[in-house]
Amino acid sequence: MQNPPQKIAVVMAGGKGTRFWPRSRSQRPKQFLAIAGKETLLHQTVHRLDGLFEPRHIFVVTTRELADETRAMLPGLPPENILVEPEGRNTAPCLALSLVEIERRIPDGVMVVLSADHWIGDTEAFIQDVETAVDHAASTGELVVFGIKPTYPETGYGYIEVGGTEGDGVQKVLAFREKPPMEMALQYLQSGRHYWNAGMFVWTLGDLRKGLLQHCPDVLAPLDGWTSQGADEAALPVIYGRLPQLAIDVALMEKAQNVALVSTHFRWSDVGSWPAAVEFQEPDSNGNVVQGQSILLDVKNSAFFGGTRLIAASGVSDLIVVDEPDALLICHRDKAQSVKQIVERLKQEGREDLL
Amino acid sequence: MQNPPQKIAVVMAGGKGTRFWPRSRSQRPKQFLAIAGKETLLHQTVHRLDGLFEPRHIFVVTTRELADETRAMLPGLPPENILVEPEGRNTAPCLALSLVEIERRIPDGVMVVLSADHWIGDTEAFIQDVETAVDHAASTGELVVFGIKPTYPETGYGYIEVGGTEGDGVQKVLAFREKPPMEMALQYLQSGRHYWNAGMFVWTLGDLRKGLLQHCPDVLAPLDGWTSQGADEAALPVIYGRLPQLAIDVALMEKAQNVALVSTHFRWSDVGSWPAAVEFQEPDSNGNVVQGQSILLDVKNSAFFGGTRLIAASGVSDLIVVDEPDALLICHRDKAQSVKQIVERLKQEGREDLL
Repeated sequence: MQNPPQKIAVVMAGGKGTRFWPRSRSQRPKQFLAIAGKETLLHQTVHRLDGLFEPRHIFVVTTRELADETRAMLPGLPPENILVEPEGRNTAPCLALSLVEIERRIPDGVMVVLSADHWIGDTEAFIQDVETAVDHAASTGELVVFGIKPTYPETGYGYIEVGGTEGDGVQKVLAFREKPPMEMALQYLQSGRHYWNAGMFVWTLGDLRKGLLQHCPDVLAPLDGWTSQGADEAALPVIYGRLPQLAIDVALMEKAQNVALVSTHFRWSDVGSWPAAVEFQEPDSNGNVVQGQSILLDVKNSAFFGGTRLIAASGVSDLIVVDEPDALLICHRDKAQSVKQIVERLKQEGREDLL
Repeated sequence: MQNPPQKIAVVMAGGKGTRFWPRSRSQRPKQFLAIAGKETLLHQTVHRLDGLFEPRHIFVVTTRELADETRAMLPGLPPENILVEPEGRNTAPCLALSLVEIERRIPDGVMVVLSADHWIGDTEAFIQDVETAVDHAASTGELVVFGIKPTYPETGYGYIEVGGTEGDGVQKVLAFREKPPMEMALQYLQSGRHYWNAGMFVWTLGDLRKGLLQHCPDVLAPLDGWTSQGADEAALPVIYGRLPQLAIDVALMEKAQNVALVSTHFRWSDVGSWPAAVEFQEPDSNGNVVQGQSILLDVKNSAFFGGTRLIAASGVSDLIVVDEPDALLICHRDKAQSVKQIVERLKQEGREDLL
């Protein structure tokens, strides 16, 4: 009997998360916030791996600006397991760099790619699904993606279309589908053959290498060259800065033929906006969610993400209020998308202090 | 020809103004706020008297807690002209104390009683009306009250009913009317014989003394006793604390027969609530009023009284937002009265730090 495959986790934690302004900032992105539970999303993501992965096999990859803080937040991991991208260049370069960094330390194993800023319920189910995917990837050499069963016609996510089911319940992927218009999203929802792509992947180190070299060699080859010349830290920024900015979905998954999907059994959210964060809080009898001190008179369906100040509100409804020491957001809960515009305006106005 | 009468101003500045919470606090009442113009209401009130009164004839009467700050805010007045009530006990004791304090310094003159926390437009018209009232009081010995021509059926003010007009355009007062129900307020509005009582009075020192002794001797006599025994500061709190808590309207004006009314020619507001304060600001094309830094997206008919923090708002309307370092108010503009309830709640919860 073969040894069980060595499991390696790669947590992508370089996200910016401007959608949670003013709580999220360039130096305090979404994964550093406790917006869906008492722990930060980063802590939740790493703690979920307890027992399933050895700490020395858990890697977190982030950008240079966030590396020190990320390392400080995760004292349970070896400091050298915080891998540092010189800059954010989307997920294909990020995972290619993770690959070459991990190959220098671990000869082989199955890599489980996760996002630091998603919420996952049911850790038990998550572990089971990871085990299924790891076994499948190790035994078949396929590239495995987790598929989330859609619950509504979301137009902001990519979809994955599956064909027949293989022996272990894992499904064959036919195609990756771009963010669809509403009509198509409705068809996807009804088809039963389409899943949300949550950007979580499982593959052996060897199969990832093979896939990258075959489908996007310009992402991996320069990093291999860097490694063969001694992996000089000082030389990486220039090399990395020339890699094509591509998502792993586009660079690899859409092109590869050996892609399989594990339909997940855990609850999942990408916590993409303030209203999504509100969903994680228990509302009071008026539908209000409150962090911090408040006095609410005739207030309904509103959320107050307060700090140290008292928030008093009267006669309002459907508001999202986010209170930070240097900035205050008051928006209708249907207008939470406009946070992006606000951040844009701040950029235009040179308010780096608030970004 | 007689000398023109000596003019003395008494500015009542002991108000609490909880209706402007969280900007107003026990140590920073309404008269200390610049809510109707660039200057505080207290500064506006005193500066309006420039040229009309000698600084040494301008008195400001306030409570012990506010005395130091009031004195510091008005360096142009002699420090001893800030008269100190041991505690707030309504306007009859306040004016009786002012009378005995002023009598010790100035043998006779005409006293013009003003409020520190009202707004007055048209300083020229104001001065003219004061002159009219002063001349009338000095020549007739009557107690003069300013009457504001009502512009809508306000049920929160007292009204003054007048009869015939005297030679100088000043009108004879028939009766003081309590805050009326709406139906009566509508009749008052239509009658042409009813004015708002804005609590501004003009009388000679001698006539005020005569009126108080005749109609409410228990307000003045104890203070006369105190004066005759040397006006010992240390003895005042006990004596003052026993005076009946009465408004001058009730203690004197409603009872006196020799009362006249000067119909004012200036614009006036008692700036009684946040929406009233909004009226004094020039709105932008969306009907918004902003103090401080803001980014507003699809925001209408709202007012933002900000501080040093940026306020970003999106998709909201008809809000009043008041931002202080330790507290934030967000209320519908039709619910501004609920500020009183909020202040009550803070009292119940022992949050003296926010009051």
